[in-house]
Amino acid sequence: MSELDVYKKQNMGNQSGWGRNPALLVVDFVNGFNDPDKFGGGNIAEAIDNTRGLLDACRERSIPVAFTRVVYADDGADNGVFCLKAPGLATLTEDNPDSHVVPELTPVAGEYIVRKQQPSAFFGTSLHSWLTMQGVDTIIQTGCTTSGCVRASVIDGLSYNYRNIVAIDGVGDRAIGPHEANLFDMGQKYADLLTCQEIIAALTHIKAAPAQAAE
Amino acid sequence: MSELDVYKKQNMGNQSGWGRNPALLVVDFVNGFNDPDKFGGGNIAEAIDNTRGLLDACRERSIPVAFTRVVYADDGADNGVFCLKAPGLATLTEDNPDSHVVPELTPVAGEYIVRKQQPSAFFGTSLHSWLTMQGVDTIIQTGCTTSGCVRASVIDGLSYNYRNIVAIDGVGDRAIGPHEANLFDMGQKYADLLTCQEIIAALTHIKAAPAQAAE
Amino acid sequence: MSELDVYKKQNMGNQSGWGRNPALLVVDFVNGFNDPDKFGGGNIAEAIDNTRGLLDACRERSIPVAFTRVVYADDGADNGVFCLKAPGLATLTEDNPDSHVVPELTPVAGEYIVRKQQPSAFFGTSLHSWLTMQGVDTIIQTGCTTSGCVRASVIDGLSYNYRNIVAIDGVGDRAIGPHEANLFDMGQKYADLLTCQEIIAALTHIKAAPAQAAE
Amino acid sequence: MSELDVYKKQNMGNQSGWGRNPALLVVDFVNGFNDPDKFGGGNIAEAIDNTRGLLDACRERSIPVAFTRVVYADDGADNGVFCLKAPGLATLTEDNPDSHVVPELTPVAGEYIVRKQQPSAFFGTSLHSWLTMQGVDTIIQTGCTTSGCVRASVIDGLSYNYRNIVAIDGVGDRAIGPHEANLFDMGQKYADLLTCQEIIAALTHIKAAPAQAAE
Repeated sequence: MSELDVYKKQNMGNQSGWGRNPALLVVDFVNGFNDPDKFGGGNIAEAIDNTRGLLDACRERSIPVAFTRVVYADDGADNGVFCLKAPGLATLTEDNPDSHVVPELTPVAGEYIVRKQQPSAFFGTSLHSWLTMQGVDTIIQTGCTTSGCVRASVIDGLSYNYRNIVAIDGVGDRAIGPHEANLFDMGQKYADLLTCQEIIAALTHIKAAPAQAAE
Repeated sequence: MSELDVYKKQNMGNQSGWGRNPALLVVDFVNGFNDPDKFGGGNIAEAIDNTRGLLDACRERSIPVAFTRVVYADDGADNGVFCLKAPGLATLTEDNPDSHVVPELTPVAGEYIVRKQQPSAFFGTSLHSWLTMQGVDTIIQTGCTTSGCVRASVIDGLSYNYRNIVAIDGVGDRAIGPHEANLFDMGQKYADLLTCQEIIAALTHIKAAPAQAAE
Repeated sequence: MSELDVYKKQNMGNQSGWGRNPALLVVDFVNGFNDPDKFGGGNIAEAIDNTRGLLDACRERSIPVAFTRVVYADDGADNGVFCLKAPGLATLTEDNPDSHVVPELTPVAGEYIVRKQQPSAFFGTSLHSWLTMQGVDTIIQTGCTTSGCVRASVIDGLSYNYRNIVAIDGVGDRAIGPHEANLFDMGQKYADLLTCQEIIAALTHIKAAPAQAAE
Repeated sequence: MSELDVYKKQNMGNQSGWGRNPALLVVDFVNGFNDPDKFGGGNIAEAIDNTRGLLDACRERSIPVAFTRVVYADDGADNGVFCLKAPGLATLTEDNPDSHVVPELTPVAGEYIVRKQQPSAFFGTSLHSWLTMQGVDTIIQTGCTTSGCVRASVIDGLSYNYRNIVAIDGVGDRAIGPHEANLFDMGQKYADLLTCQEIIAALTHIKAAPAQAAE
């Protein structure tokens, strides 16, 4: 019996589907994670590129958008165990360009910037409060790394009972093996996996863009 | 460049080491996860067997011990998105033997039983409060599944700034591919990986068992 | 300048209003808190009585209902600092009738029972996840004590960005001074204060009962 | 029977005492809360003055120190229900001097600055993770307002199982009635109440200052 068959037999890997009010969460697409000499590499640049169209589609439909950045205190006051495992993280301070969202995806006014120190976009942040304020029931995620902060954010998104949609081609990782292994885990247990194009098509049904609505 | 080399070049995979006051967290070693016809299979039975000696060593040293169980309400009142992805979870109610800790590891009085509905042992539980009360700074984890609730609990353990030690041979999964992929991720980013025997040896340095102290 | 004038001058005490999808949260109306020889007294019995009509109105409209109970482990494994301040709390174990919801308000199937160890209904529980699953944006609270678990739950409700409605005559306390002082604080900063009758009237606008809708 | 007698009879108001590793948490002593025309008034200025000596004593003993500030996004992206109740809060943005710690208490390098949007210093922040990293078991609190963010932080401190010490004369409020009512509630249920001088005396026993140790 293949590994996939084990999951099927145990009735995992079902679709949790869409709610009515999605938000887009763009995880850690910051300069330092798009630089192969720092935390980047693999298929991250491609995932950023694919996220652009999805971001545009969300903005057209006034779907709430949040971005995460890793930001530690300048003086290291909040460095923790994560910085012991991966010391480079501590360099990501407020004014270090490595911690800024990549220029291709620059947030616009009213979009929510989450500063975080841990893998999950929810941990030690006000993301859940913001989602409640927006009336969101579904989180679409793109970002990096698939095996790191995306995976962690998806687990918390599930745990808070949001429907999770992971953009297969909008998430990336420094290494392809972990990228694929984590897509498998998320698809089986925590999230529905769709391409950016499939997500845009679904959004058209859920929340028509104003221009389309006028036609 | 191999995938491991990418992580090395980015200075990941360092050891976070031990603190002074460890606790043992045994994740979801319940009957339903030790039954290949339900949620079990793979190397879970072996991991339970390996946990026995580690549990004994912790009890001898009065190291705090916590167990997790997945427990949903009898009437389904708290079923959530996780139950949409994996509907069998909702059968794990308080009195269903599938949700009870396996007999080989039966908790003794004073050990803490965490009832949870989500992957992480921390989410929606009082585990962090209990760890604070015990003065713990290091969490040793065994349990299942490696790619599910162990991984999720390790991320939260890291995020709360505990040192995480994952027992390589004390964690198990229904399928070996995800088991190994998740050990890799955890070792690179969140936890130190040691065998049960290595952990027991380390405990002897940190917190001698009463009998040994008397020698 | 009176104290109330200070708050007015600083532009506090505004109404946060209603959202579209309320839930009813009944905090700690358990036998031990309705017994003046244990944790009860003051105006708690009266608040329980007033909650009955509100509970009926919510049930008629299929508004989600949650109850909290204080429940500690039989063996004291999860006793914490709260039990040092108020040792009697540790007696509230799963099977102790003192920890059971009062008979006047017995939950029905599908209503969510939150077991908690701390003041807030949210802390160490899955209440926020449940509220997300129900699509709730507004929390109506009754319960006891006003100065204890109601106040703590209202702060967390606000912090998660729910609109909070506190039923003035549906919350009670063992002593009237703290009851009134905490109603003042909550009304100025965290919640809108309405009587049970005013809440029922508002519900009629928000979510008509099926019978009324048919008229 | 007086109200205090009710609490005594129910065995509340016990001392939870000191642990071994305290931290000092200074809540919202920022310019805007020390200005009677904004959020200040009452006895806040006096509480700031009393906090100075306590802060010095903690620094001498290398006791970890954290400060909170209320900080909302410049563009209002994270404004929530709290801003509906008290709209002035939304003016407290990163660069607004009203959101900066008062000059008398300016943080030094290595002290932790918590940016928060909700009443509790813990909510949506990494304070709990920082406390775990420092090995803290006891939180000494000063700050303002007693009836607002101090009270909320004390509840969460208790819920995470820290021992809470509230400095009676180091906490202040815009109005004295709520100040006193909340000291009463906290002393009965959540925290031990001591003066700054009593706290300094206790610290001498727990953690001698280097100079004293050398004598």
